[in-house]
Amino acid sequence: MKAVVITIGDELLIGQIVNTNSAWLSEKLFALGISVERHIVIADDEKQILSEFKSAFNNYNVIIVTGGLGPTHDDITKKCITKFFKSKMVLDVNTLKHVKNIFKRRGLQMADNNICQALIPDVSVALQNAHGTAPGILIDKGGRVFCAMPGVPYEMKYISETGLFPYLIKKFKKKTKKVLLQKTLHTIGVSESLLSQKMGDINSVLKSPRGSSAKLAFLPRPFEVRLRINVEAKNKLSASHLIASVEKRIKSKVGKHIYSYNEHPIEKVVGDLLKRKKLTLSVAESCTGGLISSMITDIPGSSAYFIDGVVSYSNETKMKFLGVNESTLIAHGAVSPQTAREMAVDVRKRSGTDIGISTTGIAGPTGATKTKPVGLVYIGYSDKSSSFALKFILTKDRLRNKEMASKMALEIVRRKLLKIKND
Amino acid sequence: MKAVVITIGDELLIGQIVNTNSAWLSEKLFALGISVERHIVIADDEKQILSEFKSAFNNYNVIIVTGGLGPTHDDITKKCITKFFKSKMVLDVNTLKHVKNIFKRRGLQMADNNICQALIPDVSVALQNAHGTAPGILIDKGGRVFCAMPGVPYEMKYISETGLFPYLIKKFKKKTKKVLLQKTLHTIGVSESLLSQKMGDINSVLKSPRGSSAKLAFLPRPFEVRLRINVEAKNKLSASHLIASVEKRIKSKVGKHIYSYNEHPIEKVVGDLLKRKKLTLSVAESCTGGLISSMITDIPGSSAYFIDGVVSYSNETKMKFLGVNESTLIAHGAVSPQTAREMAVDVRKRSGTDIGISTTGIAGPTGATKTKPVGLVYIGYSDKSSSFALKFILTKDRLRNKEMASKMALEIVRRKLLKIKND
Repeated sequence: MKAVVITIGDELLIGQIVNTNSAWLSEKLFALGISVERHIVIADDEKQILSEFKSAFNNYNVIIVTGGLGPTHDDITKKCITKFFKSKMVLDVNTLKHVKNIFKRRGLQMADNNICQALIPDVSVALQNAHGTAPGILIDKGGRVFCAMPGVPYEMKYISETGLFPYLIKKFKKKTKKVLLQKTLHTIGVSESLLSQKMGDINSVLKSPRGSSAKLAFLPRPFEVRLRINVEAKNKLSASHLIASVEKRIKSKVGKHIYSYNEHPIEKVVGDLLKRKKLTLSVAESCTGGLISSMITDIPGSSAYFIDGVVSYSNETKMKFLGVNESTLIAHGAVSPQTAREMAVDVRKRSGTDIGISTTGIAGPTGATKTKPVGLVYIGYSDKSSSFALKFILTKDRLRNKEMASKMALEIVRRKLLKIKND
Repeated sequence: MKAVVITIGDELLIGQIVNTNSAWLSEKLFALGISVERHIVIADDEKQILSEFKSAFNNYNVIIVTGGLGPTHDDITKKCITKFFKSKMVLDVNTLKHVKNIFKRRGLQMADNNICQALIPDVSVALQNAHGTAPGILIDKGGRVFCAMPGVPYEMKYISETGLFPYLIKKFKKKTKKVLLQKTLHTIGVSESLLSQKMGDINSVLKSPRGSSAKLAFLPRPFEVRLRINVEAKNKLSASHLIASVEKRIKSKVGKHIYSYNEHPIEKVVGDLLKRKKLTLSVAESCTGGLISSMITDIPGSSAYFIDGVVSYSNETKMKFLGVNESTLIAHGAVSPQTAREMAVDVRKRSGTDIGISTTGIAGPTGATKTKPVGLVYIGYSDKSSSFALKFILTKDRLRNKEMASKMALEIVRRKLLKIKND
């Protein structure tokens, strides 16, 4: 089963929107055994859209289109679908009822142009969109499945999960022969090339039984490298076995750098460890400005271990609310290992948590001094038996520095909890 | 000038990476008068890559390729380039020196596979990459410019800004005839369809003098709709005039909903207002978990007005560090207008700032009660002359709720500072 994802929208071609839909759809379809071979982004332009539809129909079993289904004048996808399938528009009564309800529930007045949201091509079925006014449009023709959805990500996701995917599973159930599986291991604080070198001969890592095969990709992100294993095998059992043996070989070589075996971000991994060990955490942030707290609280249930976050941006708040000594600030400055350490100790004590972490640094672009460059960050850690601060030289970029320092602070907690040495 | 952006990488087609490069490149090229007509994502597959290169060369003036230039076995872009241009690899001495330096500076050992990073096709010039080991590869042939860069965003951006864009500007300086301009107005807290209705007849809003034209697109995002104006005119002056008159007509119809006329996010708009009015802000967050503080501190120079952030996730911290009355928590609960208001008042007073804002709510997925559903959020505001809390019913999704509540809290500050009524 081969698929293409076509995204329609001028806003993507002038760079105002980042295309997250294609990635999400690809991941989900991959899990259904449908491999997306191509992403295409084109303008809200009839000629281009029709030509892309034609080429897609000639080459793929599944054609997924997002974008251009809104109620305003710049949305022309539905018109193009109607033309391409030589069909005409009909009113979908259920959709109209749904659209009216949405406006009623939200207490908003319904603009007239929303009625046309309930018009669909007569060759299609409407897929319900609980989160918006434009339904999905599904057309099954000549053994091919064509589905158009709105570009708003949570609407597209809802329609996919409740309408499109169940349809695809039913339709293609018996046709997929090979089983594809993938797994990604996340590493932190080690470079791509060093990982590759530690891994050694890649063919021996990927050794596979006859009739099956494995691939490994190195995917760098700020401060992280993900190792993605892909396998293809005759059945699910062989695929699972192969994934497990490749994973085992990788783990034996670079295991200590791997913080996650299941796509969980570092904040989830650390959260789960804290929960398991029944420990609590508090955070005092200067240069990360609240990002560590925000990452931690992205995880449902984090209130079980996350007690208190302080964003002490000024020296005054560091003294007044955290209790950092004025003498420390005067002698060593706010960006110093001494201050970082004190912040971690103080936030832990004042909140009564088991662990306290802290950050202080020069996020940039300004604030550098002769001895303290942009990117200099100290991360403090404190528990009952030890307190320390580690120094990092990150980048010139403010947002990357916030992100990298936040991840690293959480990684330091992970290493302490698992007794892995900082090196 | 027409361009295509080709992104190479299995990781995008299985959805593990979101393609942010294409959006960034498109925006920058648009500003240079080069219109990107197509984004394509394909696998690390020689046949596909070569076929895409061929079609790109037949149809576009500028071909930009990202991805697949790393030092590991899965990166085959350079091999394909060499093949496509029937060239051979040569060692680039400057690049080799640079690669060696990078490892030295970072105090890391250099893996042998990094030497091949300094090999480039003999028909190309290497574009310097200060942030990584793979240089950009630029080939100018038959009036077309081909440029391949690594997929890591900050490396790609560096190479584009220091190597590719200056080259394109020089090469195409005299050839662009029409001037393209765009401007985006950001609105918050109003639906796409209501905006469109308030706007009325779109043709009169977009009325343009002969020889020029204007387009308007509605781009929804959580809690926001952006209005993007695109114009095409004979010269820069006419284009600027047209943008200004379309903007004026839009403003007269939906002006109070527009918080930004220059792509600035709400945290920057509010920050600039605070700086101009010499006011300071503190934030007490419960359901947003630090996100408001993190958004505010994303802006360089925010230390001028942002004094103190508190993430009080538990009732204890709300009482102990903020001073919320136990009787308020008992009588009304943590998620109540009374608690939100007290949090805002307390954080303002304890930090000695002019304004205090707060959030408390049920972010989800758990925590709902019979009377308090997931998505219920109260936002508190306090200054010397007034303190209040507003109620919002957001979504079922934790991360969207955090994002929407954070934006809305900042929007409430904007409205107060500009004396716009909450409606």
